[in-house]
Amino acid sequence: MKGTMSDVKLEECREHIRSQLDNVVDFWLKYSHDTVDGGFFTCLGRDGSVYDKLKYVWLQGRQVWMYCRLYRTMDRFHKPEILEAAKAGGEFLRKFARVSRASGEWKCAFCLTSDGKAVKVQRTLFSECFYIMAMDELSRVTGDKDMQLEAEQMMEQLIHWVRVDSSGLGRPQLPGDVPTNSMAVPMMLLCLVQQLTEGQGQDVVQKYKELEQWCVQQILHHVQRAGTAILENVSVEGTELPGCSGRLQNPGHALEAGWFLLQYSAERGDEKIQETAISKFMELPYQCGWDKKHGGLFYFLDVDGHCPTQLEWSMKLWWPHCEALIAFLMAYSQTKKPELLERFFEVYDYTFTHVRRMYVEQPFLCCFSSQPCLLGCYEMGLAEGLSSSGVT
Amino acid sequence: MKGTMSDVKLEECREHIRSQLDNVVDFWLKYSHDTVDGGFFTCLGRDGSVYDKLKYVWLQGRQVWMYCRLYRTMDRFHKPEILEAAKAGGEFLRKFARVSRASGEWKCAFCLTSDGKAVKVQRTLFSECFYIMAMDELSRVTGDKDMQLEAEQMMEQLIHWVRVDSSGLGRPQLPGDVPTNSMAVPMMLLCLVQQLTEGQGQDVVQKYKELEQWCVQQILHHVQRAGTAILENVSVEGTELPGCSGRLQNPGHALEAGWFLLQYSAERGDEKIQETAISKFMELPYQCGWDKKHGGLFYFLDVDGHCPTQLEWSMKLWWPHCEALIAFLMAYSQTKKPELLERFFEVYDYTFTHVRRMYVEQPFLCCFSSQPCLLGCYEMGLAEGLSSSGVT
Repeated sequence: MKGTMSDVKLEECREHIRSQLDNVVDFWLKYSHDTVDGGFFTCLGRDGSVYDKLKYVWLQGRQVWMYCRLYRTMDRFHKPEILEAAKAGGEFLRKFARVSRASGEWKCAFCLTSDGKAVKVQRTLFSECFYIMAMDELSRVTGDKDMQLEAEQMMEQLIHWVRVDSSGLGRPQLPGDVPTNSMAVPMMLLCLVQQLTEGQGQDVVQKYKELEQWCVQQILHHVQRAGTAILENVSVEGTELPGCSGRLQNPGHALEAGWFLLQYSAERGDEKIQETAISKFMELPYQCGWDKKHGGLFYFLDVDGHCPTQLEWSMKLWWPHCEALIAFLMAYSQTKKPELLERFFEVYDYTFTHVRRMYVEQPFLCCFSSQPCLLGCYEMGLAEGLSSSGVT
Repeated sequence: MKGTMSDVKLEECREHIRSQLDNVVDFWLKYSHDTVDGGFFTCLGRDGSVYDKLKYVWLQGRQVWMYCRLYRTMDRFHKPEILEAAKAGGEFLRKFARVSRASGEWKCAFCLTSDGKAVKVQRTLFSECFYIMAMDELSRVTGDKDMQLEAEQMMEQLIHWVRVDSSGLGRPQLPGDVPTNSMAVPMMLLCLVQQLTEGQGQDVVQKYKELEQWCVQQILHHVQRAGTAILENVSVEGTELPGCSGRLQNPGHALEAGWFLLQYSAERGDEKIQETAISKFMELPYQCGWDKKHGGLFYFLDVDGHCPTQLEWSMKLWWPHCEALIAFLMAYSQTKKPELLERFFEVYDYTFTHVRRMYVEQPFLCCFSSQPCLLGCYEMGLAEGLSSSGVT
């Protein structure tokens, strides 16, 4: 594609994503607010009807984060109703999301009843990640130092679980349960470091510097098989694990990690990491994960070509496509290499041709990760932000 | 279909299932035995290669049960190699499956390493169910009273968790986690009662009589909406629960429960339960769960027609089809109503036309529940047993 044609198409993409983002934010402002018990409904039908009142903490956190980020960074969303909704959501989270443990530690619930009673607590740390993102971003728009402190305290807890002692997560210690470096953990921690340090002074940046480098190293350990594959789970020593778990590939996660690595490389001007992010964490998952026959990214694959053990392995879910859109556009934005823009267009065309069908078939995922949704919106927002800031 | 035509087709089914059962048993005898560490490999490719060495306790238990049941009840499988393999599998289970808890209770692991180290313990009771089934059936072929005692002790533990105090399962008590009657629990307990009391004297029958009736009542509570739907999760008072969980339908589970209820009704000569088993637990899930367009049983449905939250809801898995085959054949065998035989033939034709494709797309399920497999085999065996004993 010639430069000018690309420019025209990119501008079309930008316009389309802008209008989608407006629709999505309108939808969630209109239908998701629980004006009785606070917080947000996240299981919404396409007509806005609430088909389940459970409140998933990931989603509460993401919605607070999203509203604040839109309010803070994009003029057309700098509206009092968005700020007020974010504050109400944050209040709900602070009041109900945390569950105290016998150890004296705090866990975040995974899921709450409509009026805030804990339904389920997972033995992982991802609810806490979204709690931190919400609190940090909310403190930036409200100036509330207590919230900032809460974000930092929860972050300390997370770091303790990941690097010192995971027993507070509640998983029994079992002799056959080999410690594993799962991509999601260093990836989310890196994302949190980027959140907490964004625009902050050297003291904060310095505080998280060692952790950030550790996260990057942990992510890089997932480059396996002499640089030819990204594997989702590796040993803590950075070697391949046996069996299905060791051979698992999750192209969406790899692309998401690539996007965080690109952000890291941009902040540091680290060209080596940039090159690795693109060639390993974007090109490899695209090569192995893109369905050559029907298009779209597979959810899971086995590096040796066995059928993955996850039933949903062959499904085309909307969020890996969002992650791929952001990753390739960010990579193009940084490098201006036309082949990366081509990748973006390919993913874009597939995604916006199929996303309605995905939504019809995966409403829970959509509701769970909020689609037409705040993660989508957040990611579309990011893509839009990128387009606005230099690509077009 | 005229009587004679049905008879011919039924005989063909019987022959086909007989040969499938032979193939399946040969396959597992040949490829699944771990002669180094004991126990059975359950993640086998179609060529018999082991693609993961993890040993799932459900499967270990089922395989021991299956071997013993075949050895004990079907002449052509009454072979020393089958008995020896069952005993070796039972030894592995007794040695490694149980994990002691701080409370002094025993849990069964969900998954073990190849050499028997616990990898994962679920906060449910199903591993224990398969442990009990294995120990009880094994004690019947070996005459080992200790094994019988172990089965009964684990059964006591299970009953305690279900009816007195579930805290030993390890789930934290959370205020929003409403106690739920999930179909799987009374259904599996009823199955265990049937296992433990089969062919036993009045003392054993009497011991479990109240529990058996309680299980039947708990299962009947899943008939909801004025008798028009079977719902997978209901309140402990027997009323519908709100949200996606309350609206969930699992046609395969309903059919499986129907099959256990039919066994119960046959033992008691209880025609009312027989009628309910067929009209509610077989006809309703068939009506709602059979895909009118492409054939096959859906995995999950929402009673109000929303899209279920489980990603895999629309998949056609092999085991609900096995359950349906057994249920309809058993219902026909008891009632001789031709429409039930028609249902059997419909499920049979679909299953044996599509099962290879299911296997290719769902190998883990297949391996996990052992297909070409011992659950399938167990269920095929049952179907064969039924055909042999009066239907044809």
